[in-house]
Amino acid sequence: MTAVDFAAFVEKLADIASDMILPFFRTALGAEDKNVGGMFDPVTEADHAAEAAMRRLIELTFPHHGIIGEEFGSVRSDAEYVWVLDPIDGTKSFIAGMPIWGSLIGLLHNGRPTYGVMVQPFTRERFIGDGAGAVWRGPGLNHALVERKLATRLCEGLAKATLVTTSPLYFTEAKLAAFRRVEAKARMSRYGGDCYAFAMLAAGHVDCVIESGLKTYDIAPLTPIIEGAGGIVTNWEGGDPTDGGDIVASSGPRLHEEALRLLRD
Amino acid sequence: MTAVDFAAFVEKLADIASDMILPFFRTALGAEDKNVGGMFDPVTEADHAAEAAMRRLIELTFPHHGIIGEEFGSVRSDAEYVWVLDPIDGTKSFIAGMPIWGSLIGLLHNGRPTYGVMVQPFTRERFIGDGAGAVWRGPGLNHALVERKLATRLCEGLAKATLVTTSPLYFTEAKLAAFRRVEAKARMSRYGGDCYAFAMLAAGHVDCVIESGLKTYDIAPLTPIIEGAGGIVTNWEGGDPTDGGDIVASSGPRLHEEALRLLRD
Repeated sequence: MTAVDFAAFVEKLADIASDMILPFFRTALGAEDKNVGGMFDPVTEADHAAEAAMRRLIELTFPHHGIIGEEFGSVRSDAEYVWVLDPIDGTKSFIAGMPIWGSLIGLLHNGRPTYGVMVQPFTRERFIGDGAGAVWRGPGLNHALVERKLATRLCEGLAKATLVTTSPLYFTEAKLAAFRRVEAKARMSRYGGDCYAFAMLAAGHVDCVIESGLKTYDIAPLTPIIEGAGGIVTNWEGGDPTDGGDIVASSGPRLHEEALRLLRD
Repeated sequence: MTAVDFAAFVEKLADIASDMILPFFRTALGAEDKNVGGMFDPVTEADHAAEAAMRRLIELTFPHHGIIGEEFGSVRSDAEYVWVLDPIDGTKSFIAGMPIWGSLIGLLHNGRPTYGVMVQPFTRERFIGDGAGAVWRGPGLNHALVERKLATRLCEGLAKATLVTTSPLYFTEAKLAAFRRVEAKARMSRYGGDCYAFAMLAAGHVDCVIESGLKTYDIAPLTPIIEGAGGIVTNWEGGDPTDGGDIVASSGPRLHEEALRLLRD
């Protein structure tokens, strides 16, 4: 069974995430504080409800598959197929009412991300990729849903690049210095975005995304979308990004080398 | 003629802005560099086209009214009625493909903001206010357009507050230090947003927005929305925000005093 065979099932998971989460968006529900004493990390009721519902469907349909989820941890994470779930990536945006968060659903095959979708239910957008190709589904000019191929854009180098990071507050001091070296060379830098920034890279509107301290569920579902659109994603050492950590994604190889070099300097 | 009488005309201007700008969103058009040698300040074709079209309709309909526009400057800015236009507030978001920019249309009466609208054509949202009240129109759960009253939420103080600023890069060193004093006390801070952050304050999802170096057209159209929803907006000295500069908006008076005190310390 190839990743493509899972496409219909992934759409079902995406429907569940949309249906569970959208009713909670822009409502005044309480947010638990996961890191008491540490930085505020909002987790909503929607996050819990959506992951629980997705896990139930996976367990019923593919009982031998593993699951790695942001909210409820890992089961059978060494299985041939492992689902990676982050119901609300971009919780700060979610809490602030800004529609640039997303639900992430990914599928690992033998530890490698092979299929991924990012769902934004308020804007009715889905970004879907399998490493070889990627598509966007969302509202066209007349607001009816349309589908388009995703492709990163050609960028000659950082001097022409739009760079995005979610927040400089997420970097340690040494890593912030590394990020600033790249930022100083970029044509434009923008803060805020989480998964939406990676999606815009796949769509050809952003050239480079640099993040620090990501988890598997923050990046593995996005890898097949970024790579399917022609982009590159690695950790800051140029290695496999699947386990998370410090991540850099670029629209093409030349820009990626330039960013990696500056991050390592 | 009261501000309310202008409501239908403002909707017409908002339609023009939407129709002119949305076709350019997420297309690969060139962006001029307004500040050569300075910080990158993207201006799109859409920005120019939309402001020119809005100005034409205003000149035809109300030839004695003044206009202050982001792209084409001021005419008759001492008239009894003056229109304030910023076709794309949040150009960095626009360029990065993120739907948290907006078209701002405001009306000054004897120098005071009396009516304002923020339009986000991709999400089909409009935030409209006249200082006494404010409403949101946008997609409901079934994606049909609905209208709701806007109201800021009660926030006990910064320790419970969600704070937003567009980017710490927009502050001078001394002003960044002042901003950091507020940020250190806030429950959560989020970067990125421009007009969308003020709109989310009016909608009750954000408690405090702090910006530096705004122009009249960045804030005057938003004032009637923020105040109409029960919020407060002033400069950092607590004075009239209409001329722009360093701006702080809060969901209520107690929080506003706390933020002003920390900014002045």
